[in-house]
Amino acid sequence: MNSEIISIGTELLLGHVINTNASFLSEKLAEAGIDVYHHTTVGDNPVRLTAAIIRALGRSDIVVTSGGLGPTVDDITIEVIARLTGRKLVLNKTILKGVKDYFRSKKVPFPEESIRQAYIPEGLKWVRNRVGTAPGLIAEYGTRKIICLPGPPREIVPMFERDILPIIKKLSGGIIIKSKTIKTTGLAESQVDGKVRDLLKLKPPTTVGIYAKLGQVDLKIMAKAKTSGEAGRNIAKVEKKIRSRLKKYIFGYDTDTLESAVVDALIKKGLTIATAESCTGGLLSNRLTNVSGSSKCFKSGIIVYENEAKENFLGVSHKTLKLHGAVSAPVAIEMASAIKHYACTDIGISITGIAGPTGGTRKKPVGLVYIALATDKRCIIKEMRFRGSREEIKFQASQAALNLIRAECHANIHRN
Amino acid sequence: MNSEIISIGTELLLGHVINTNASFLSEKLAEAGIDVYHHTTVGDNPVRLTAAIIRALGRSDIVVTSGGLGPTVDDITIEVIARLTGRKLVLNKTILKGVKDYFRSKKVPFPEESIRQAYIPEGLKWVRNRVGTAPGLIAEYGTRKIICLPGPPREIVPMFERDILPIIKKLSGGIIIKSKTIKTTGLAESQVDGKVRDLLKLKPPTTVGIYAKLGQVDLKIMAKAKTSGEAGRNIAKVEKKIRSRLKKYIFGYDTDTLESAVVDALIKKGLTIATAESCTGGLLSNRLTNVSGSSKCFKSGIIVYENEAKENFLGVSHKTLKLHGAVSAPVAIEMASAIKHYACTDIGISITGIAGPTGGTRKKPVGLVYIALATDKRCIIKEMRFRGSREEIKFQASQAALNLIRAECHANIHRN
Repeated sequence: MNSEIISIGTELLLGHVINTNASFLSEKLAEAGIDVYHHTTVGDNPVRLTAAIIRALGRSDIVVTSGGLGPTVDDITIEVIARLTGRKLVLNKTILKGVKDYFRSKKVPFPEESIRQAYIPEGLKWVRNRVGTAPGLIAEYGTRKIICLPGPPREIVPMFERDILPIIKKLSGGIIIKSKTIKTTGLAESQVDGKVRDLLKLKPPTTVGIYAKLGQVDLKIMAKAKTSGEAGRNIAKVEKKIRSRLKKYIFGYDTDTLESAVVDALIKKGLTIATAESCTGGLLSNRLTNVSGSSKCFKSGIIVYENEAKENFLGVSHKTLKLHGAVSAPVAIEMASAIKHYACTDIGISITGIAGPTGGTRKKPVGLVYIALATDKRCIIKEMRFRGSREEIKFQASQAALNLIRAECHANIHRN
Repeated sequence: MNSEIISIGTELLLGHVINTNASFLSEKLAEAGIDVYHHTTVGDNPVRLTAAIIRALGRSDIVVTSGGLGPTVDDITIEVIARLTGRKLVLNKTILKGVKDYFRSKKVPFPEESIRQAYIPEGLKWVRNRVGTAPGLIAEYGTRKIICLPGPPREIVPMFERDILPIIKKLSGGIIIKSKTIKTTGLAESQVDGKVRDLLKLKPPTTVGIYAKLGQVDLKIMAKAKTSGEAGRNIAKVEKKIRSRLKKYIFGYDTDTLESAVVDALIKKGLTIATAESCTGGLLSNRLTNVSGSSKCFKSGIIVYENEAKENFLGVSHKTLKLHGAVSAPVAIEMASAIKHYACTDIGISITGIAGPTGGTRKKPVGLVYIALATDKRCIIKEMRFRGSREEIKFQASQAALNLIRAECHANIHRN
């Protein structure tokens, strides 16, 4: 069984909006066991939309459209479907009530043009929109299905997951696809590839894909099976192999982020932390505090951008700064120890480096970063060299610092 | 003259990668005066790719493909083009030398499979890849043109802008399209819309579009003309109207960000700044320090996440904290004054609030944020109420703080 996604909207063809719906729908359809062979995007043009749908119906079992369901005359999806299926548009009172209730809840007067959204092709199945006004639509076309969904991501995502996915799963004939993503940091893509090359060549029903981002490499295991249990067991077998090969480089699974894994580990061990940042300028603290509940472990942070601030706020010695420079291991160590001391935390972490694009020298090039982690028992120092833009270097430095904290939590040498 | 974009890659159909190339190419083609009516995505499948190209050639003057130029057997674009144009693949020694040089510069041994990238259809025009190994390709097909570009955004963007855009502009018959984006903050989309509604209805050759993001609304003026001068004059006319209506809400143009506008304004006025953040957890400092050259105005920052830190690091009085709570105007004022004092800067800015999702009460709900700005002459305090997720509330708070700094720079009451 295969499917095709048609995205509708002139804003997509003008490049004003990036098409995230196509990738969202593709991922969900793949997980439901449905192959996707084509994405098509057309503007708010009835002739080109009709042609695209007819072409899709000729080669795909399920055609999913997104967009063109709004209240303006530019929104043409409903009319095109009515003409294609030979049905007339009729007012649906339940939908109209829903649209009116929506505006009432927003304390906004009902805009007359929104009445258009309550007209749907006679007799067609429709799906309630719980966060907006445009209903979804499900049409049969011979043995094919056309599913029309709204364009805004905040509307299409919940509608698809709640109301469409169960229908799709039934159509896919009970094939179950399960996936698990294993997230790593600290190794380059080629290094991860080298450790799991045999697994990357696995053929269906169980496959492994590799996906590299800045400072992170993910492995996604996908398993197709008749039952959820069988798919789960097949994933577990491959996961066991990956875990034994990548061990400490694995920081989390699926929706985990490195910062959420670090905050979880700190809370679990009952450890508190404070930060002293120079070149990352607050990024490390910002990432830690993006995690809900981080106030349980994150106490405070200092951003000491200039040398004077390093002396005044953290008491880094003038002599160390003069002798070694602000970007040096001794300064990083003094910063980490000082913030740990002043903030009265279990861990103090510091970052000092050159984010660029200017400020580098031959001995201390752009991308040179020192990261220090101080506890009651020891102080670890790392020298790293990163490449990329200013923001990329900042990000990689924060990534390495988070990974150092994670390693420390697992080192098990603390009071707990 | 119209164009069509074909994106190639099974990873796109699986939803593993978001298709940013299609929107990038669309935007650039529109600016060059070329209409785009279709986007199509197919996997690494020669039959479906061939069909997609033939269909595109039937309805579009220029077909631009991205992807499928890599060194592996999955990369099929070159072979499909060779077959379509009836040419055989021949080794191009210049390309081969470029590919070998690339690996030499990376200090990586030449992978034998990469020799495939030096085979191109005999006699076709090719384009050097300055950041990767896959060359671009330009084929004629009757009166149509097929332009094949690499898939990675970091390769396609510079190749398109440097080598393809001049060709496209020549094809578009000398029509010039210019655009200027005016960026605002501090007003909701509906408020900006209300002020420029007549301009949003302008018809070509000069049009205005409105684009809302979190905490920011942009207006993009586009003008089509025979000469660059005429397009520029038409943009200037509309820009003048927009400026007179949106005045102080405009923070910048085109590639400006709010943080870059703030850093520019601070440096221009010779003002220094330090931050004291609670609920934003370092985001404000991070955004300021993302701007290259920010060390000229940004001195230091403190993140005081817990009450004790507010007392210890900033000397916020225990009494104020107890009487008004950490999220209150008096605490924000004490924080801003204290960081200004300790960091010896012209401006001290503070943020304290409830980012959620937990921690809200009826009197102090999630999204309540106080922002204070202290100078030698005065202290301004703002109470704001934001909606959204934890990260959205943090972002909007940092956006409001940046806007307050910008207003202060323009208030002209400083020593300079």
